[in-house]
Amino acid sequence: MPAINENFLKLEKNYLFINIAKKVNAFTAANPDAKLIRMGIGDVTLPLAPVVVDAMKKGADEMGVKETFKGYEDSGAGYDFLREAVSDYYKSFGADVSADEIRINDGAKSDCGNIVDIFGDDNIILVTDPAYPVYVDSNKMSGRTIIYADSNEENGFAAMPDESVHADIIYLCSPNNPTGSVYTAEQLKVWIDYAKKNDAVIIYDAAYEAFITDPDVPRSIFCIEGAKECAIEMCSLSKTAGFTGVRCGYTVVPNALKVTASDGTEVSLAQIWGRRQGSKFNGVSYPVQCAAAAVFTEEGQKQIHENIAYYQENARIISDTMTKVGVKFTGGVNSPYIWFKCPKNMGSWEFFDMMLEKIAVVGTPGEGFGKNGEGWFRLTAFGDRDNTIEAMKRFEKLVSEL
Amino acid sequence: MPAINENFLKLEKNYLFINIAKKVNAFTAANPDAKLIRMGIGDVTLPLAPVVVDAMKKGADEMGVKETFKGYEDSGAGYDFLREAVSDYYKSFGADVSADEIRINDGAKSDCGNIVDIFGDDNIILVTDPAYPVYVDSNKMSGRTIIYADSNEENGFAAMPDESVHADIIYLCSPNNPTGSVYTAEQLKVWIDYAKKNDAVIIYDAAYEAFITDPDVPRSIFCIEGAKECAIEMCSLSKTAGFTGVRCGYTVVPNALKVTASDGTEVSLAQIWGRRQGSKFNGVSYPVQCAAAAVFTEEGQKQIHENIAYYQENARIISDTMTKVGVKFTGGVNSPYIWFKCPKNMGSWEFFDMMLEKIAVVGTPGEGFGKNGEGWFRLTAFGDRDNTIEAMKRFEKLVSEL
Repeated sequence: MPAINENFLKLEKNYLFINIAKKVNAFTAANPDAKLIRMGIGDVTLPLAPVVVDAMKKGADEMGVKETFKGYEDSGAGYDFLREAVSDYYKSFGADVSADEIRINDGAKSDCGNIVDIFGDDNIILVTDPAYPVYVDSNKMSGRTIIYADSNEENGFAAMPDESVHADIIYLCSPNNPTGSVYTAEQLKVWIDYAKKNDAVIIYDAAYEAFITDPDVPRSIFCIEGAKECAIEMCSLSKTAGFTGVRCGYTVVPNALKVTASDGTEVSLAQIWGRRQGSKFNGVSYPVQCAAAAVFTEEGQKQIHENIAYYQENARIISDTMTKVGVKFTGGVNSPYIWFKCPKNMGSWEFFDMMLEKIAVVGTPGEGFGKNGEGWFRLTAFGDRDNTIEAMKRFEKLVSEL
Repeated sequence: MPAINENFLKLEKNYLFINIAKKVNAFTAANPDAKLIRMGIGDVTLPLAPVVVDAMKKGADEMGVKETFKGYEDSGAGYDFLREAVSDYYKSFGADVSADEIRINDGAKSDCGNIVDIFGDDNIILVTDPAYPVYVDSNKMSGRTIIYADSNEENGFAAMPDESVHADIIYLCSPNNPTGSVYTAEQLKVWIDYAKKNDAVIIYDAAYEAFITDPDVPRSIFCIEGAKECAIEMCSLSKTAGFTGVRCGYTVVPNALKVTASDGTEVSLAQIWGRRQGSKFNGVSYPVQCAAAAVFTEEGQKQIHENIAYYQENARIISDTMTKVGVKFTGGVNSPYIWFKCPKNMGSWEFFDMMLEKIAVVGTPGEGFGKNGEGWFRLTAFGDRDNTIEAMKRFEKLVSEL
């Protein structure tokens, strides 16, 4: 048999959420009557906005008529109508991103995982810890060296660069998954300066930008001067507009991002990324792109912000409970995540098991996101209101009796 | 700046179809009144079947209602309703493929390009030449050694293995893109025996299986004994049901496919592939999966076969013209492609330019698919009937005047 890519054997055996699913399945099999409340995986629960559904159906209808049928997209980078809508959206919060710097994708996870293909395997990868597991796993699959910047209680779970350490590729996520922390404009500027000093590229995950309410917190790294010479940004409609099951996002590779190859050739990263996608991707479903474009209309923005406000109120309910029972946390504002310290110095998985067994609430153990997550725990505000209130009642009782 | 993956610099500068698009754009700019007929890129032209559109709209409606809203898929491998429909479809033509061996994807190109990730870079890759460029490019991007098996006029453009040559991974495509040739059951058995002797894995592209009319030509490599121990198959609804702009396909990695790692561990390829997809893919849009499932219903099969019959009639019209003007060709039956020898020993691009300039018909130069394509040319039967007839009239006149 052909040799496999043995880097796969060095990965953690189970993807975090698969592990959780197994434990939950075992619990529900043993306790079929338990009223389980899921606050673990960051999935949304509110339906798509009406304008989004209408646009998708209109797109589907067009596909059923010869004159308006759409086959392959010419470029596979997304229809102009959507790329322009995303460009205008960026401009609305002060980031100058042109339509030709945007590629539409089937969700941020795909591009976030696949972007590694365009870089050499000898690069040093810097990941803030804790982090979304895809940053680590996608690089481990290529056998790369990964170093970590600690996000912890001391720095409010917002790691800053260590000037004595060199990195070539830097993953940042703000608002952060899992910790809910955000970078201010000043902090992002420090990262950009560090990247420039190291000739590094920042891969910036902005998937939760729509939850930012504080006007001082940047919605995009491209709100900060100098970012276009050193950063790639990924964003998604999954959390912005409930697209977790629709699958659409976008990646920005600025035209100014150039790399010099070993033979001295100047290479545009956007061009290589386009070449990669040209061979291994064929664009996003047309009706899905129609649905995505509807998100950026005036009525679309109004409707999706009603959903976001609903989740933000859930986040407030969870945060208030944490404050009331004296549990330390980050997030809850500018973010759908609440990241808290497990009471009584319990371990993350220990607390996970206890919550599942005693109050039938599912969360995400912090250590699944890295070593600095040990003893911490993530809850999401994406649940249904009644369930969120009920879960917090149970949580309050549980913690007060510990 | 970080080191890029310099294998990208070794790729042909332009992807074949981008090159064609540029030439066509230049032509239409210079000849705005020319009645251009496109028979180049293998894109369909008939609209989606009504049952498919209805199913997609129903799926969209479900996404707009809280009780039926779908977020992330648990596995990302596709909903059971679709995986089971695909499994039943396989069984209908004698291939025993179970639902848990099938992963739903956003089109065969993505999986065909991404599958390379699970194999080591030292493997020897065997590609039949001419071939779909993705097989070559996706492996060149990983810096792999590629060897070729010649498909040519002598063997009817259906390369067979050279027993004196070793390969680890073998790409086969039947019905073939670009040559329209097909492998018989006996020929596939020879390839399977060769793969087993070499401990190789066959990556089998069955994207055009729906065009097979000859009952002796296998619709899947899994119709042949022994294939489940050595083959992965990719298929797509792009040509089967006009999904080029909808984006849905499926990959079969049999449970029996095991590889021994260097430390002696037995590894399931399906499991590693699932791990890869678990980190770099998040499943296919729910309404798209609903649309795909409709293809496999009784009414869906009836409706899509009306479209396939339409394209088959186009293929007959093109084939008859080739026969009439005495141009040698393969394909045209069991395939939507007609692969012909350029008259007067012209080169592929030379003939491309001439067809474009003189009769405003766009085709695909054979040499874009590999060295054995030099002097050959691909036309597709996916056009509109009137255009196909008109193009063949122009073609007949052009060739008879050469």
